[in-house]
Amino acid sequence: MDNTKQKAIVLLSGGLDSATALALAISKGFDIVALTFDYGQRHKCEISSAREIASKYNINHRILKLDLAQFGHSALTTNIAIPKGKFRADQIPVTYVPARNTIFLSYALALAEVESADFIYIGVNALDYSGYPDCRPEYIEKFQEMANLATKRAVDGKPVIIEAPLINMTKAEVIRAGMNLKVDYSKTISCYDPDSGGAACGECDSCHLRREGFKEAGVADPTRYVKIKATVGSQ
Amino acid sequence: MDNTKQKAIVLLSGGLDSATALALAISKGFDIVALTFDYGQRHKCEISSAREIASKYNINHRILKLDLAQFGHSALTTNIAIPKGKFRADQIPVTYVPARNTIFLSYALALAEVESADFIYIGVNALDYSGYPDCRPEYIEKFQEMANLATKRAVDGKPVIIEAPLINMTKAEVIRAGMNLKVDYSKTISCYDPDSGGAACGECDSCHLRREGFKEAGVADPTRYVKIKATVGSQ
Repeated sequence: MDNTKQKAIVLLSGGLDSATALALAISKGFDIVALTFDYGQRHKCEISSAREIASKYNINHRILKLDLAQFGHSALTTNIAIPKGKFRADQIPVTYVPARNTIFLSYALALAEVESADFIYIGVNALDYSGYPDCRPEYIEKFQEMANLATKRAVDGKPVIIEAPLINMTKAEVIRAGMNLKVDYSKTISCYDPDSGGAACGECDSCHLRREGFKEAGVADPTRYVKIKATVGSQ
Repeated sequence: MDNTKQKAIVLLSGGLDSATALALAISKGFDIVALTFDYGQRHKCEISSAREIASKYNINHRILKLDLAQFGHSALTTNIAIPKGKFRADQIPVTYVPARNTIFLSYALALAEVESADFIYIGVNALDYSGYPDCRPEYIEKFQEMANLATKRAVDGKPVIIEAPLINMTKAEVIRAGMNLKVDYSKTISCYDPDSGGAACGECDSCHLRREGFKEAGVADPTRYVKIKATVGSQ
């Protein structure tokens, strides 16, 4: 165990973005603690993906159970239908979970303090994303400013740095960065409405963004789709 | 049900400060949702106090179960001994729970969005307090700025306002404000280390602050103490 190593908490949802953020953090040589939330999401296979990814890298992995479903109000945690088709940019979709990233980052901040971690990695992306307010750079900046005042660690002059390395990348750029780091995207799941076996619907916003990303990056799409025959390739 | 009423989420721990913040919010005429966290605290009688207070006012009350104890690192959630005696100001005590107010306010923010609430009331106090970083005015201000960017409600031009009405009050001022609003302080518990019947130890920092507050306010202290015979009065 190298005690001189800096430590990073990586929010790992099991999706394409967070797997890439994880690979980036690993490439920096940090001692890693991956943090996954079992928050009542309908797409539970996310959690299995996260588990598989963490185990492949042989890193510490904590799965924290939260009950955001009790708040209702999101298609990701209740039985509101997941919209199909592309719905980017001008309005916040029903898949928005109230204050989700704020809650996730708050727990990451607590864990960073307990683990004496220097960094929190979060794979948010403000270009090819679903229009959630808590994925924007200005939001992350304000969370950082708040975090700088929130914890004992920060008061002691060692604030935790929040890194959002994908925030200004297109989905294609994320995929290219991940391919350079040999991320196995076949293990990731982005779909909001997968079937019970974890196959992607191919029709929700998240599937659209992902498929177009692979196309634009010129990378064979390794996603298992249910309804749509996509170009399936191997890496 | 008056639908024109503005709504406030009030963080209600069951302590003296939050009971006063609640009374202040009620005095403004808001429709109230009290929010209590069952976060693995050792002093569980806090939760019974919160329940009793909410029921007395006949307000909506949500008790949310979180597991902050799994993070360890605090005398309030693990078996680290609660320090006795007064330990104000120059260092953060072992009763500090990592990022606690950030996690609590994040959940309050989510609930505010779901409940279409206009305000969040939190009874933090930066004068007579235990030196926690997340009780300071500059922290609350930064949380507000972050919250203004975090939610759908804020993006739609209706940010939730965080009110910390006690933040610049001494404990005596808090008690006087509460007495004016007929807060029944005998129902509140401030002690970090009460006995199983909810009697206060009289020796922890929180007991010291509370007892001195009553003395300075010239109000009979209604607290049930275990070890120390205090002036016991009735209101």
